[in-house]
Amino acid sequence: MEAMPLDDAFLDRLRALDLGLTEAAPAYLEEPRGRWHGAAAPLARPRDVEGVSALLAACNEAGVPVVPYGGGTGLVGGQIHEAGGAVLLSLERLNEVREVAAADGALIVEAGVTLAEVQQAAEEAGCLFPLSIASEGTARIGGVLATNAGGVNVLRYGNARDLVLGIEAVLADGTVIRDLKRLRKDNSGYDLRHLLIGSEGTLGVITAASLRLLPRPAEVATAFLAVESPAGALDLLQDLQGQLGEVISAFELVHRQGLDFLAEHFPDMTHPLETRPDWMVLVEVGGAYGTAKALETGLADAFERGAVSDAVIAQNEGQRDALWAVRETIPEANRLTGSISSHDISVPLSRLPEFIERGRVAVAEVAPDARINCFGHVGDGNLHYNAFPAAGRDKRDYANQRDAVQRAVHDLVVSLGGSVSAEHGVGRLKTADLERYGDPGRLAAMRAIKAALDPRGILNPGVILTQS
Amino acid sequence: MEAMPLDDAFLDRLRALDLGLTEAAPAYLEEPRGRWHGAAAPLARPRDVEGVSALLAACNEAGVPVVPYGGGTGLVGGQIHEAGGAVLLSLERLNEVREVAAADGALIVEAGVTLAEVQQAAEEAGCLFPLSIASEGTARIGGVLATNAGGVNVLRYGNARDLVLGIEAVLADGTVIRDLKRLRKDNSGYDLRHLLIGSEGTLGVITAASLRLLPRPAEVATAFLAVESPAGALDLLQDLQGQLGEVISAFELVHRQGLDFLAEHFPDMTHPLETRPDWMVLVEVGGAYGTAKALETGLADAFERGAVSDAVIAQNEGQRDALWAVRETIPEANRLTGSISSHDISVPLSRLPEFIERGRVAVAEVAPDARINCFGHVGDGNLHYNAFPAAGRDKRDYANQRDAVQRAVHDLVVSLGGSVSAEHGVGRLKTADLERYGDPGRLAAMRAIKAALDPRGILNPGVILTQS
Repeated sequence: MEAMPLDDAFLDRLRALDLGLTEAAPAYLEEPRGRWHGAAAPLARPRDVEGVSALLAACNEAGVPVVPYGGGTGLVGGQIHEAGGAVLLSLERLNEVREVAAADGALIVEAGVTLAEVQQAAEEAGCLFPLSIASEGTARIGGVLATNAGGVNVLRYGNARDLVLGIEAVLADGTVIRDLKRLRKDNSGYDLRHLLIGSEGTLGVITAASLRLLPRPAEVATAFLAVESPAGALDLLQDLQGQLGEVISAFELVHRQGLDFLAEHFPDMTHPLETRPDWMVLVEVGGAYGTAKALETGLADAFERGAVSDAVIAQNEGQRDALWAVRETIPEANRLTGSISSHDISVPLSRLPEFIERGRVAVAEVAPDARINCFGHVGDGNLHYNAFPAAGRDKRDYANQRDAVQRAVHDLVVSLGGSVSAEHGVGRLKTADLERYGDPGRLAAMRAIKAALDPRGILNPGVILTQS
Repeated sequence: MEAMPLDDAFLDRLRALDLGLTEAAPAYLEEPRGRWHGAAAPLARPRDVEGVSALLAACNEAGVPVVPYGGGTGLVGGQIHEAGGAVLLSLERLNEVREVAAADGALIVEAGVTLAEVQQAAEEAGCLFPLSIASEGTARIGGVLATNAGGVNVLRYGNARDLVLGIEAVLADGTVIRDLKRLRKDNSGYDLRHLLIGSEGTLGVITAASLRLLPRPAEVATAFLAVESPAGALDLLQDLQGQLGEVISAFELVHRQGLDFLAEHFPDMTHPLETRPDWMVLVEVGGAYGTAKALETGLADAFERGAVSDAVIAQNEGQRDALWAVRETIPEANRLTGSISSHDISVPLSRLPEFIERGRVAVAEVAPDARINCFGHVGDGNLHYNAFPAAGRDKRDYANQRDAVQRAVHDLVVSLGGSVSAEHGVGRLKTADLERYGDPGRLAAMRAIKAALDPRGILNPGVILTQS
């Protein structure tokens, strides 16, 4: 993009399109980590797919960049445009649940519906939409799909893309793709659904989706456990899966460091265990009647053979919520502590204990007194691996080490066959990583596809692929 | 493609590349349904991904079409090139199991390994690779992925694409994409894996894949049941899922017509039930100890309330194989009978009974005495819906009605929100259907992607997209 002719004449054209055009309020220009700050920009809030199409067609013709905006909860800066000259496109007014088709196992929703509202609509239909992330009250399903969000139930139900039957989307030139099917099987040509999901608004704008509805489990049980080590956690998972089958929906690793941060910033939050172990796991199962009992039996066996040294099983909904609150408040406690560098990484399961061991050494070589909080979706091989200042020091003290810490962690991840962008996406944060670590053939194909679907490069420029 | 300069000079270039170049034997020029006949063609059988890359680079430079060839079992003509002037590319010599990584839940195999060999490798590692199709002894995994094969276990485990962690592939210009990751989560850019899977060799040639290994169920149980109707089958499935959870791996509808064809062509094959009901179901479950007992209980309940009127549960491996043989031999009995027109369709679950009822009427309007054999993956909403001549007549007698039968069935499917290409793909058979019924925006995007990744149009021209 050389010219960005976002002038008054162009804005007048947009105003004629009934897009609810305003100046973007400050909230649209910030993101949760406070790293990027958007330039002042016009904000379009179309009411329907035709409005999105009209906006994109106009911007494409004029060569004006468009930054799609969902709930604003993304952690890699994909919703922020610092350079200026772009139009923000919020999907918030496409907020209808178009159809609840429980008999087809499908739920048709528009992009602006929040993830919590999707879950709610599923529940009201006696079904389950299992995707769950900490920001689900704010995150909108369009952004959830654009970033292929993960969360705590991937172990059993997959990432966002695994829960989508079809999509409606608008391409850069305003072309609408209408593919809101509700079929389990459809081999009629290229899978554009999966290409657009996870493309972070750079190939098209998702305006609606046909989501999978799943059966609600008759019983859910949740427990918080002390384990010996990350390797012990993985062994336990395998044993429980062998005993219980596919009912384990969440298996989240928690480190003592996370609970220490919680105690500091949320002193009223109760530690779930009597002991203070280094490594803990939150496990949740859901299934037919008897599943809760089966978990209890499995944990008793594990306790007897020493695989679990302490455990609490939630006895009611309140206790269950309290256990989840511990897990889900850790990111906020991290934020309040202020990290040197945060990493959203995945490695093959067999390399995970090695990663944790070598990661500590690699970080210590760069920042010897740094504290590590390593937690998350251990059953998926996906950890949030964050380095923090020593007690009493501030993240600004480590400004000179930050890049080196990140480089050390990412180099290690890649050497173990892992990904430096496991579930949050690439956004603006990791474009350099993608260039450094990405397969050249894959990058070439990605650039070719971007050029084919968005030849003028108006869609979220600078996200995923660097601008040439 | 105007010029197809497959001349002696070009063949000499290929001979210099160590691709095992020969004249294609007749078997490479035929396909299971006998509808297409390939023109005589040179056959390249490279040993590795570098050989595939060298071949494609040379053909791309010269503008010579390339037709990728797996096991030759495809049912839509995607492996056949009738026009001549193309090179056949068989992946049969890329036949190594590169790595069995059970601890990572991954199996790395080359494209030429057969599906049965993949299942075998998984079994030897104490795991399960659940994809299962009738042609698994011959079908090679490269073709299985290129066509996103379905089969009998989709209900629980998904289509081929749902069982792939990563791929290695070669683009038209010889660029190699190396992405054989073994991660559950990797949000680092566009999902080329899902774009290439199901693209039927028109966007790239898959040379290897990282496949998901799943836990082997401790118990498997198989039963054959009589049900009242297709709607009754779907109700039963829902009830059993409610009682048993996610352990139901197969739920296959069988119609009496299929068993009549079996009796005619395979008189030694025993009918599984004492009665001769119109509609039957083969159900299979797999899970922890107790799963078989749970199925028995579930079926006893169903019998008591009249949802099942007759049932046999396999008591040993031999009986289990015999039940499956009934289901898996129906396509061969169909072939020997000779259909007027065959359809691989899917509809939303809620519309499936309506489709079966209205389909019979629609076919009868065109060919009043035709017999229908409707069977298959009813739990996925995917039926094989085939029209046959009246007893004593031949399919050639219906030559004038064939197109109208197909049109009537496909129109009905599309009017119900279904797909006319559920699991076999588009190939050469359904390009016109895709143009007729496909969403124009989706087709435009598909053409743009094809032009971007294969600008000279050398990869399997005429498959999926018609040539312009």
